[in-house]
This record gives sequence, structure tokens and C-alpha cells, in this order.
Amino acid sequence: MTRGFYIGRFQPFHNGHLSMVEQIADEVDELVLGIGSADDSHSVRNPFTAGERIMMITKSLVDYDLVTYAVPIEDLDRNSVWVSHVQSMSPDFDVAYSNNPLVIQLFREAGIEIRQSPMFNREVLEGSEVRQRMIDDGDWESLVPEAVVGVVEEIDGIERIQMVSKTDSNGN
Amino acid sequence: MTRGFYIGRFQPFHNGHLSMVEQIADEVDELVLGIGSADDSHSVRNPFTAGERIMMITKSLVDYDLVTYAVPIEDLDRNSVWVSHVQSMSPDFDVAYSNNPLVIQLFREAGIEIRQSPMFNREVLEGSEVRQRMIDDGDWESLVPEAVVGVVEEIDGIERIQMVSKTDSNGN
Amino acid sequence: MTRGFYIGRFQPFHNGHLSMVEQIADEVDELVLGIGSADDSHSVRNPFTAGERIMMITKSLVDYDLVTYAVPIEDLDRNSVWVSHVQSMSPDFDVAYSNNPLVIQLFREAGIEIRQSPMFNREVLEGSEVRQRMIDDGDWESLVPEAVVGVVEEIDGIERIQMVSKTDSNGN
Amino acid sequence: MTRGFYIGRFQPFHNGHLSMVEQIADEVDELVLGIGSADDSHSVRNPFTAGERIMMITKSLVDYDLVTYAVPIEDLDRNSVWVSHVQSMSPDFDVAYSNNPLVIQLFREAGIEIRQSPMFNREVLEGSEVRQRMIDDGDWESLVPEAVVGVVEEIDGIERIQMVSKTDSNGN
Amino acid sequence: MTRGFYIGRFQPFHNGHLSMVEQIADEVDELVLGIGSADDSHSVRNPFTAGERIMMITKSLVDYDLVTYAVPIEDLDRNSVWVSHVQSMSPDFDVAYSNNPLVIQLFREAGIEIRQSPMFNREVLEGSEVRQRMIDDGDWESLVPEAVVGVVEEIDGIERIQMVSKTDSNGN
Amino acid sequence: MTRGFYIGRFQPFHNGHLSMVEQIADEVDELVLGIGSADDSHSVRNPFTAGERIMMITKSLVDYDLVTYAVPIEDLDRNSVWVSHVQSMSPDFDVAYSNNPLVIQLFREAGIEIRQSPMFNREVLEGSEVRQRMIDDGDWESLVPEAVVGVVEEIDGIERIQMVSKTDSNGN
Repeated sequence: MTRGFYIGRFQPFHNGHLSMVEQIADEVDELVLGIGSADDSHSVRNPFTAGERIMMITKSLVDYDLVTYAVPIEDLDRNSVWVSHVQSMSPDFDVAYSNNPLVIQLFREAGIEIRQSPMFNREVLEGSEVRQRMIDDGDWESLVPEAVVGVVEEIDGIERIQMVSKTDSNGN
Repeated sequence: MTRGFYIGRFQPFHNGHLSMVEQIADEVDELVLGIGSADDSHSVRNPFTAGERIMMITKSLVDYDLVTYAVPIEDLDRNSVWVSHVQSMSPDFDVAYSNNPLVIQLFREAGIEIRQSPMFNREVLEGSEVRQRMIDDGDWESLVPEAVVGVVEEIDGIERIQMVSKTDSNGN
Repeated sequence: MTRGFYIGRFQPFHNGHLSMVEQIADEVDELVLGIGSADDSHSVRNPFTAGERIMMITKSLVDYDLVTYAVPIEDLDRNSVWVSHVQSMSPDFDVAYSNNPLVIQLFREAGIEIRQSPMFNREVLEGSEVRQRMIDDGDWESLVPEAVVGVVEEIDGIERIQMVSKTDSNGN
Repeated sequence: MTRGFYIGRFQPFHNGHLSMVEQIADEVDELVLGIGSADDSHSVRNPFTAGERIMMITKSLVDYDLVTYAVPIEDLDRNSVWVSHVQSMSPDFDVAYSNNPLVIQLFREAGIEIRQSPMFNREVLEGSEVRQRMIDDGDWESLVPEAVVGVVEEIDGIERIQMVSKTDSNGN
Repeated sequence: MTRGFYIGRFQPFHNGHLSMVEQIADEVDELVLGIGSADDSHSVRNPFTAGERIMMITKSLVDYDLVTYAVPIEDLDRNSVWVSHVQSMSPDFDVAYSNNPLVIQLFREAGIEIRQSPMFNREVLEGSEVRQRMIDDGDWESLVPEAVVGVVEEIDGIERIQMVSKTDSNGN
Repeated sequence: MTRGFYIGRFQPFHNGHLSMVEQIADEVDELVLGIGSADDSHSVRNPFTAGERIMMITKSLVDYDLVTYAVPIEDLDRNSVWVSHVQSMSPDFDVAYSNNPLVIQLFREAGIEIRQSPMFNREVLEGSEVRQRMIDDGDWESLVPEAVVGVVEEIDGIERIQMVSKTDSNGN
């Protein structure tokens, strides 16, 4: 049995993430999706809560055969202990997946196998692209799984991200 | 669709918890199991990490029809914001289940429906009973689901709890 | 102009505190009441929130001529920086009042004048006495200013402290 | 009796804030001024401590009939629990006042009435304008209540903000 | 070159610690002394600051040939990341020394060599014994290196520990 | 006996720092080097851990007569208590050395003597210059003491800083 670990912020979970999961599914029996910056929400960069992101992921993957776990990972703001933190919050895993250079470096220094994928640019670009389209009333729906559209609507997510995008941080 | 929320520390997940889940299953379609004190581990009171507890819960409930989520909830040490913290980490829920008076009070003040069950004593007693038997090389296996026995053995959990039970905190 | 600083947890603000304030009023023009453990609430030792304690203090002192400030002081759990923390949260003060040996020691090491009072025992005893009577449905009302009775009733404070007194911490 | 809550950083308390308070005074009997980022100080954006800001507010409002409370609110860096945090630190309030989109969104999601005012731009602009003039030895005094001038002078506030404005963060 | 790591709270550094260092000196070329609970001070259990403990250790070991480093380690209150935290704060080490069962378990799970010594009881007992004698005006001087007597006197350490021993935590 | 305190991030310890130490050595008998942002690592601005920086400093100064202490200082993110924090972590000192305006202001407000030096620009510029050259495979070795070259190589430091320089924070 092989278990993989895939870390992301999933703000929101979009088609780039889904392709990545499909690709990983060929290599592992079970997959943990670590939801990074779990304690962050209601900002342009992190509009959705961890609970909302769990719903997005779970509903998007419900028809896949892969056994998946969606696990919120709160920020510790301390790179040197981050891998231990992740390991304590997640079911034990054999291999980590990421295209983020910092994450790759931290896992490598900890002696954990890490695999990259060629879809880095797509994954990264889509994240901010989706959020920008949400703010601009553009077509964000075509970039995410249908289940995610449902979650965002249920929580009035578009109103939220549009509202917080008007904030210049903490007022005057 | 009704979703319930059941909070516990699950150190470890034992037969009392399982009975509680079975009872709740009659009332809800989906159930979130909030793993309290998720950031605590390697102590007599909290021997297992959040990741290990996710494994215990998931494997114990794999044959049940109920859709379940196991969500780690880190301590904030701040009762007044605890309910908001839980809500941000968990998929949205309609009703909470707990026999803990503090938890009941906090949910009530937040206006969230909370249900109790008559199995409080059993549930509480079994938690420390299981851990004490683990320390004393007693029969703890009969008090937990079979899947939990497997997880504890895989992580050398008995050695761990016996070892840390010898510590008088931080040494001198 | 002389400004004094009087630190306490005020759980709740009771007649012992009131006498202390009356005594201090002879020595200062303005008085800051620092509400310690401001982030703690919903426990037997700290049943009331900082906001509730501000109400108790402000309403109890409304008819006094003394200019008072009620300032919440969150715990930092770090004795060595506690005085700096207090100074940053409070209007500047000339003299501190306390009967707590740790507080006295910390102010002394920081070179700040600290005055004690002979009513230490009364003050300390009354705090836990009031809370115990609240739990036991005893006569706590006679130990606190009338305004405090009003605040406690408005927030259903007796129900709260009785409920949390049944908790053995975080459940099993 | 109606109590309002008005959140700001008040760095420093200026004429825009004062106008806002005067306007709110027509609608409420009591007003809580929540001092945001209370734990921040000695930076260009947040030059003054919470205690210093309490002094500015209290002295500026001393001649108004309105009952006011100045309450420091430390940052929790966690939007999802921010409203609960504010509620625990503040006397209970019926309506919140803010022009900050994030604050408005958070209060709305919590089901708390929030009122805006047309003076947003003035309020925001004046905050950074006052600080810039302080740094440039310009005429900042005309933008703040007279009492604030006194507080800033007493604490050598101009020297402080000019000094920290020269810092490029934490040295090399 | 072999570097060892020896963790303790060193409250204060006493003859038991010194014997342990002498014993370790036979096995390593350099020794890091990790000062645990570095952020704690002014309590009966942790009377001295990290800085004061650095002085005690450095002055006590000045005449030894061993190259030593005294490194404060702040508490993270999170056993699962504690080893990573220690590793990030300390020069790289080959072997750890401790008689504390929790510490031994944590290093073992991290795959780091850990060595125990037969002097556990002596070491532990002396720590609280020294502090109790300080409180009781007993003969604590004979249990610590002469340099430690000097440091304690210079900082009025006896007055401090006697004072805080009278506190029942945070007042009433 | 005079003891000085010199704060910096030392990312890495370079020739500008060394000159500063040489200059200070004429004025003090002992010198504490406070390693700021000790809990930060694996970023472009703070590539090295506190433990690695202790090694750089200790090995670079081994042949100097000056008694030195290298003490990690974790960030508290709270300017108003920073001086107290530093004082609790460091051996007692008589004079502080810094060219950082914020640090100078904080020590001044605390009434501690602070001395500046004319080499500010050199010191600051070299810090980011060294890191940029490390990223660009340029000649960084000529800007740091030889011992630092050894430490950086031993920990594969160039690979680390080059890797994390590719990260745009936390991925998408």
C-alpha cells in the first residue's frame, strides 16, 4: 500500500488541482490532501475557510476510486519545523507531491521522497486567475469542478471575495 | 441533508466512541468527527498525534454507510472564540453532539443546537481506562475497534505511552 | 496629577475590590484597572469575559468621582516581559497597586513603585468564595456591588459557571 | 439603551475619527471604541501603543456627553474568529460602525448589524496623511484634536515616528 | 569531531549537571547545553531567566577544556515538532544526552542517537532540592558550582524565588 | 567589566559584521551577539537557521581574545516588549550596539545606552549583497570570513537559498 501527500492551499480547488490528483492516482493507493494556510480566510489570497475547502475537495473527488483524506494544516510560520508539523497532522505517507520550491526543499532536507510534475505553471496560474475572475465577475466556473461551483454559491463566496478585495488591509 | 458534528479527543478512538457514532448515525446523513487537542501528542493524556487519530477513526468507520469527515482541531486556549474556530475548520453542520459541559455551554451561547447522550460516563471512563491499561500492559484491545489495535501496533504506540508515563514533565 | 494602576482578574468584581479602589482613591487622581487574564473565560476560575468584566467595573464605579479606565490585559505567559506588556496596554501610571507577590516582584525588578495593602486575604478569599457560592446557589449577591448582580443576571452568568464547573477539562 | 461599537486603529485619533464619533452619537447612548492592532506600535503604520491611544481617545472625548469605552483589541491574525474575539473583549453592543470592507463582511457573516458612513475616504486618507506629516515635520496638529497634540508631545511621539521611519525593517 | 547535545532546564545549574557534563566530556569534543523552557522565569519551578542561566553555565564551565555552547530553547508546547525545533536552534549534533523519558522517546522516534546515564535520580532530585533550600534559607550553596552562587547573588535570586513562592498564581 | 550587546540577523555573518565586532572589542570585555529572527529560516531574507548562524559566529570569532556569547533571539512581533524579551534571553549587558533606527529607538525608550557606528551602510548593503551573490552563483566567498564558507558548504546552503528563491511564497 502506498500513500501520497499533496499539499496546496486550494483557494479554491480547481481543475489544475484535479488533474494533479488524477495523475497522482496512478502512483498511489491513498492520497492525503493537505490544506495549507488552514487558519487563513476572508482575504483575496485566501478567501475560503478550511472547512469550506474540505467540502470542495471531498465533493469534487467523491466519484473517484482513490481513497482520499482532506486534512487542514494550520500555518506555523516556521519553516524549520514545518515538515514535522505536517507529519503530525497527516496519516503517515510514503511520498509527497509538490511543485513549490520551498516545500520541495523542506521535504528533501527531511529525507522524504518528493515528486514534482510538469503542470506547475498551470496549477499556480489558475489559482490566482480563478480568484481574479471571481472578483471581476468573469467566468471562473469553467476553471473549477462543478462541485466547487456549488460550494461557492452556497456560502455566497463571490460576494465575500469581492467585498474583501476592496479592503486596504485594516482600514486607516 | 443533515450534518452532525461530534467533538472528542479520541485518545484513542474506542468502543464508547463507536457506540456514540452508531447512535448519531440514526439522526444525520453525514458526520464530522472533530479531533480536539489536535496539536497535542506524546503525553499520557494525549499519546497519539492527530494524523494517527485520523487513521484510527477512518479505518474503524470504513464499513459504515455514514459519510464521515475526520477533522483535526488545534487548541486555541481561548474558550470565547472556540466555536468560531471549530466552525472555520469544519464543513458546515446542523447539530453538535457532546457530553462535555463546557462544550455544551459554548455551543449553546453561540445558538447552535447541541444534543447529549446518556453514555457520558461510559465514554469518559473508557478513555482513561484504555490508556491506563496500555500503560499497565493490561487488556486494552477489548475496549477498542480492531482497526485501532492495528494502528497502535504499527506506530509502536504502547512503547510510546509507557515511556512518556515515566516522565515527570520536563525533567529538572 | 497622579495615576495609579491596579491589576486583578476581577472574576467577578466584588466588594473587596471596591474597598481597595476606595482606599487607592485617596492617593491618586486617576486609576487604571488592569483586567488580567483578559483572554480567559468560561472556566470556574475565570468565568467572565473581559467585556463582561469591563461592564462590571464601569457600572460599579459610575458614581465615584475618581477617573477610571478599565483595560483588558491578555496573558502573555512570559513573566519577564509582563511589565512591558502592561505598560504598552495601559495609560502611563506613576504607581502600581497589588497584593500579589509575583506582581510585586516583577514591578520591583522593573523599578516601578508598588504599594501593597493590608486587605490581601480578604481580597483573595472573596474571589473564590464568590465563585463557589455562585456554583452552590449560595448567597453571592451580598459579596458584590449591586451593579455586578445586574451584569451577571443579564448574561446568565450563574448558569454558565454552574455548567462549566461540571466539566473535567476537555471530555475524555 | 443602545450601545454602538466603532473599530479603528486610531494611529493617531484624528479629526476624521472625531467627526465619525459625533455622527454616531446621534444614534447610540453608549459607544465602545475598539482599538485595533492594539499589540502593534513603534512602526510607521502603527506608531503609538494601545495605552497611548486610550489616552488620545479619552482626552479627546472628555467633554462629550456620550458614555464611551476605549478597549484595546489585540490582533489574532485569524479573520474567521475575529468577531468572537471582539465580542469577548468588548461590552455587549447592538450595532457596529465601520467603513472597512473586511470588517463589514465579517460582521455581516456573523449576523451583526453594521452601519457605514460616507466619510470613508476622509477617514482613511487622514490617517496616513497625519503620519506622513509627522514624519516630514509638516502641519499635523491641525488634523487632530488638541488633546492628541498634548499626548503626542508628552511621549515624544514625533521623534519616535521619525526614527522608525528610517528603519528598513530588521536591519540586515 | 563529535558534538553532543545535553538538554535541561538548569534551574539552577547544579553539581548534578556538572557531573553529567564531566561524564559526557569523555565522549564528545564539543557539547551544546540546550536551556529548556527558556522563555519561563520568575516562578518556583523556573526562577531564572535564560540569560541568567547562560551566565551560570558559562561561568561554571570556563575552566574546562570542552568547547561548549549554551543555547536557549523556548517552549513550543508541541511535542511532535520539538526535535525539529531543537535542531533548528542548535549547532548540529551527533548524539543527545538525557535522562528524561519524554525527551528520550522524542529523539528515538526522530532516529537520533540518545544516551542515558545512571545519575538520573541525583540530577532530578537536586533540582527541586536546591530550589526548596533557596526558599527555606537552607544550605543551597553546597549543591551548586561556586560560579552559580555568584550569579544568584548578583541578581538577588534568593529574594526573587522566596517572593514568587508566596504567590498563588495570578492573585484572586 | 563591561559587557556589550550587538544585535543582527547575521544572514550570513559577513565581513561587515566582523569589522563591527573588531571595533566593539576595543570598548568592552565581553560581547553578546544576539541572533535576531532566530525562528526564521529557509527564505531568501533568512536562509539559515539559528543553529547554523551560531556556528558561523563561533567559528569566525574563535581566534579573537574577546569573550563572546551567540544567543538566538526569537521574534515576538511586538515592539513594545522587545527590549524586555532581549534582556531575558541575554546575559546582562551595559551597552547595546546597533545601526538600526528601530532598535536604537526601542533601547533609548527603555533607558539603555546605545552606540552607533559609521559602518551602517556597509553592514546593511553587504547582507543582501552576499545573499544575492549566493543566488546568482557569484563571488560571495570574498565577503565573508573563511569559517562561514565552511559552514555554508557543509549544510549545502547555496542549494537551499537558490531553491527557496524560486518560490513565490506558498504556491497557489
